[in-house]
Amino acid sequence: MQYDMIVRHARVFDSFRKCFVSKDVAIQNGVFAHIADHIDAVAAKELDASDTWMIPGLVDIHMHIESSMSIPSRFSDCVMQYGVTSVVADPHEMANVFGMEGILTYLSNEETSLDIFYGIPSSVPSTNEHLETTGGCIDAQDVAQLLRYPRVVCLGEVMNFHDVCYEPNSISAQIIKTCKKERFDLPLEGHCPKISGEQLDAFLAAGISADHTQQSKASVLEKVSKGMFLEIQRKSMTPEVMQTLIDHELYEYFAFVSDDVMADALCQGHLNRLVQLAIQMGMKPEWAIYCSTFTSARRMHLEDRGAIVPGRIADFILLSDLQQFTIQSVYKRGIHVQDLPKAKEMKFPAHFYHSLHCEKANAQDFTIAAQGEQALCNIMEIEAHSTFTKHIQEWVDVRQGNLHWQQNYTLACVMERYGKRGTKAFGFVKGAFHSRGAIATSWAHDHHNILILGTHEEDMALAQQTLLEMQGGYVVVRNGTVTARVYLEIGGIVSGAEISVLGAQLAQAKAEIEELGYVHDNVIMSISTLSLPVSPQLKLTDRGLIMTKEQRLIPLVEEWR
Amino acid sequence: MQYDMIVRHARVFDSFRKCFVSKDVAIQNGVFAHIADHIDAVAAKELDASDTWMIPGLVDIHMHIESSMSIPSRFSDCVMQYGVTSVVADPHEMANVFGMEGILTYLSNEETSLDIFYGIPSSVPSTNEHLETTGGCIDAQDVAQLLRYPRVVCLGEVMNFHDVCYEPNSISAQIIKTCKKERFDLPLEGHCPKISGEQLDAFLAAGISADHTQQSKASVLEKVSKGMFLEIQRKSMTPEVMQTLIDHELYEYFAFVSDDVMADALCQGHLNRLVQLAIQMGMKPEWAIYCSTFTSARRMHLEDRGAIVPGRIADFILLSDLQQFTIQSVYKRGIHVQDLPKAKEMKFPAHFYHSLHCEKANAQDFTIAAQGEQALCNIMEIEAHSTFTKHIQEWVDVRQGNLHWQQNYTLACVMERYGKRGTKAFGFVKGAFHSRGAIATSWAHDHHNILILGTHEEDMALAQQTLLEMQGGYVVVRNGTVTARVYLEIGGIVSGAEISVLGAQLAQAKAEIEELGYVHDNVIMSISTLSLPVSPQLKLTDRGLIMTKEQRLIPLVEEWR
Repeated sequence: MQYDMIVRHARVFDSFRKCFVSKDVAIQNGVFAHIADHIDAVAAKELDASDTWMIPGLVDIHMHIESSMSIPSRFSDCVMQYGVTSVVADPHEMANVFGMEGILTYLSNEETSLDIFYGIPSSVPSTNEHLETTGGCIDAQDVAQLLRYPRVVCLGEVMNFHDVCYEPNSISAQIIKTCKKERFDLPLEGHCPKISGEQLDAFLAAGISADHTQQSKASVLEKVSKGMFLEIQRKSMTPEVMQTLIDHELYEYFAFVSDDVMADALCQGHLNRLVQLAIQMGMKPEWAIYCSTFTSARRMHLEDRGAIVPGRIADFILLSDLQQFTIQSVYKRGIHVQDLPKAKEMKFPAHFYHSLHCEKANAQDFTIAAQGEQALCNIMEIEAHSTFTKHIQEWVDVRQGNLHWQQNYTLACVMERYGKRGTKAFGFVKGAFHSRGAIATSWAHDHHNILILGTHEEDMALAQQTLLEMQGGYVVVRNGTVTARVYLEIGGIVSGAEISVLGAQLAQAKAEIEELGYVHDNVIMSISTLSLPVSPQLKLTDRGLIMTKEQRLIPLVEEWR
Repeated sequence: MQYDMIVRHARVFDSFRKCFVSKDVAIQNGVFAHIADHIDAVAAKELDASDTWMIPGLVDIHMHIESSMSIPSRFSDCVMQYGVTSVVADPHEMANVFGMEGILTYLSNEETSLDIFYGIPSSVPSTNEHLETTGGCIDAQDVAQLLRYPRVVCLGEVMNFHDVCYEPNSISAQIIKTCKKERFDLPLEGHCPKISGEQLDAFLAAGISADHTQQSKASVLEKVSKGMFLEIQRKSMTPEVMQTLIDHELYEYFAFVSDDVMADALCQGHLNRLVQLAIQMGMKPEWAIYCSTFTSARRMHLEDRGAIVPGRIADFILLSDLQQFTIQSVYKRGIHVQDLPKAKEMKFPAHFYHSLHCEKANAQDFTIAAQGEQALCNIMEIEAHSTFTKHIQEWVDVRQGNLHWQQNYTLACVMERYGKRGTKAFGFVKGAFHSRGAIATSWAHDHHNILILGTHEEDMALAQQTLLEMQGGYVVVRNGTVTARVYLEIGGIVSGAEISVLGAQLAQAKAEIEELGYVHDNVIMSISTLSLPVSPQLKLTDRGLIMTKEQRLIPLVEEWR
């Protein structure tokens, strides 16, 4: 028998018995073909791997490529060095900007070395047209069309708990119904933080069977007991949650996932860092690997990968240190990732590069006319460790007929950018900037209208103007000068640049934003979710300030005096 | 909240933590809707289950309804009392007799209470037209058509190891290719007894990922380590195999399956008996239940069932004794099975009832002309504990120009019954009958031609004539009198009668066959596999005697003297 490649003497991970066994592994046509103590055959390529641990390629089943502000081809070229060889991506942001056209552009691009499967974005828009203006929306008919693509392997995170459970005619409920009808075995993914008891049961009873939001010990035990598959992302990896997973041996029922990794973080690693962290936190390497390869693949019915056994795709990692999870090399379908061709440059329709349809602003556009002497305002207070805001009310002075927000607040403004309504709304933010400057961005969840934050009207206008010239991205202005630019020229949300270039731009922008005084664990995420109308407590869209739990608009000024 | 039904105070099986917890369980629209310590709500029906253990309905993922010689509607009415609420059936026999028409007839019948999913028969015929004549055959195009049915959930047991691994243009290889292309996540089921090492790897590398044949300790460990899902049927449940499954905690990687249960055995139980036996053999009830519900459903991607959690179908069993696995009652989609309507009578095309196209035989048809004084014959010797035969050669006397087989043997004759070729072949059987009589049957694997066995030509002719009048079944003749009849009037292989009626007929036939001196653990299976050209060692079809390993015909008479 002649094989393409034989990896000899590696300590090979047996996913089924959760141990490493010294074996020879033969590969043929990109698939593991034969595994034995010693393979008495020749191969075009022989690899002595006696100092290594050989494990399956990592499978990331809940993530958004757009979170890296990058495109599939660039993402593919970057991520495989970290051992990530398959992902299930939910192109939620592209769908908000371009609707079906955005999703189909991704689905039609099959030329990445990384295997990219897709979840269908299920909540586009995140609320409805009365609360936010988006470029596209996805309804049940669109879902039926997308279900015909073999690379579509799940319904992406369903968020709208109320509609799913109690509004059978809602878009969310109709989408679920369509999935069950068209592909009854399709995994339906959920997003249900802080829901438990009868409410959780109603969500599950609707057919949703996974959750990737932040967990606690109690939520882990309840959700697993109720059959919910858990996708554990970084923020869920608390000592308490990790210990619960370990103590109760819940390894069959969860997988590690990356969810959102920004371009700058992506220069350091990806899902491999979570596996590393899990081991550091006391999980046996065998189990941490199992839950980022085998259970992941099984959850998505990708049973052609996720283990080193005959018949599965020959995606694998050679580790030089198991306990440290140090990656020596990565192979995709039996080919060293450094020998893989770079992904072809992705082509997008011309209008994807000209998608910010909005007038240039001037300083006067950021004044807010007022009456009387003071106004009781609804204000967003930033929380430094979460993407939630606190809703507070404070009296703001009126000076020369305008609200004098400059005194204590940063002004937030969202301008509709799809050329649909031209709507614009203001909000005040407490705990943002402390010195003169502004940022403008089209990376504003989920609708991706233009969000401008600033302490000075001229700087806000400059930031917005610069952003329009760039047709998308992040702009930081300090003391009247543009000090950072992140170019997101495709749909205003993603970049065609290499990850390293993009990562450097992003790092620069973050540093400049922090110079303005913004204090947060993740400044970009904090800012870009100020506009997300499903994230507690008070948020701002182009339609106005929204009490997100109640899903209703409230005015900026509650009362004059 | 108003529910359809609440089961109160049951010890409910938590599939995920493998324990029983006292809970209230609410059901709505046939689905588990809410589970809690106490449900403070009303329901149309309340059930106090405080003395019981509540477990999911059993899921049987490898079985053939035709093995019960019954039809789906009758099978459904019978089997749910044993807690079996979902099956994946491989209609292999119907396919051999009627080809696609047989399978589609089953697929179009959706009116059973039992949820019947289907595997596509992958080896029809079991060999090829040179070695056996069948009514139908299934090729890759047929498979492509069948894959469009949502109730088709797997490719049924692929048997032909050689073709799969080494003949890319063979029908088996083409069928697998079609499956991968059309539904890449479809489970491909295998049949690979006694294959290991590089051969097993080649079988797995072709994409097959399960095996249901008889296992040993070594085969269990090798196959599981290589990612093969094991379907454990009765004959695999040896102390050695059970202990291996238990010691190595392989619970995620196997399921109990019934495979073949005949009508008379079906009057006693079904998959429930294997669960019972597993517990008796030392497996913890929690694990035995897990491996006949949860892992079973998961293997087939039937994740809408197999556990008592919100969102899954409300199929459940109440046990009055856990250790004995004593079933008190069974519910299908929340309805007590005794309250379910009986399945509608299944309609088959008229020609399904007239499918034995063959001339009536007379005694002279069973004489074999000879020359010389003796003939060295190839003979099938029956093994009392398996369906294998031993190939022996013995000298048979010639008397009055005919072989005098009556001396020491039972004569076997297979007559083609599809009106295609009119072929007929003889073989001698050692260890069959010891007194005067005969049997005739159209239940002759896999081709289901007419198999006649006898010690007396007149009785053989009578048996064959009677069988033709019945248009299928089993006929036993003792001393010139018909003493038992099993009516299998549909395709000559299955009966429209109730299981109890059919079971009684079958029990009678078995007793009569044993009266003729046939000694075997399973006389019906032993006889009906005498004609199976893929089961070792020497078998007989309408084309002649076949050395099954070599897949070649050999003559009855090797040498004259």
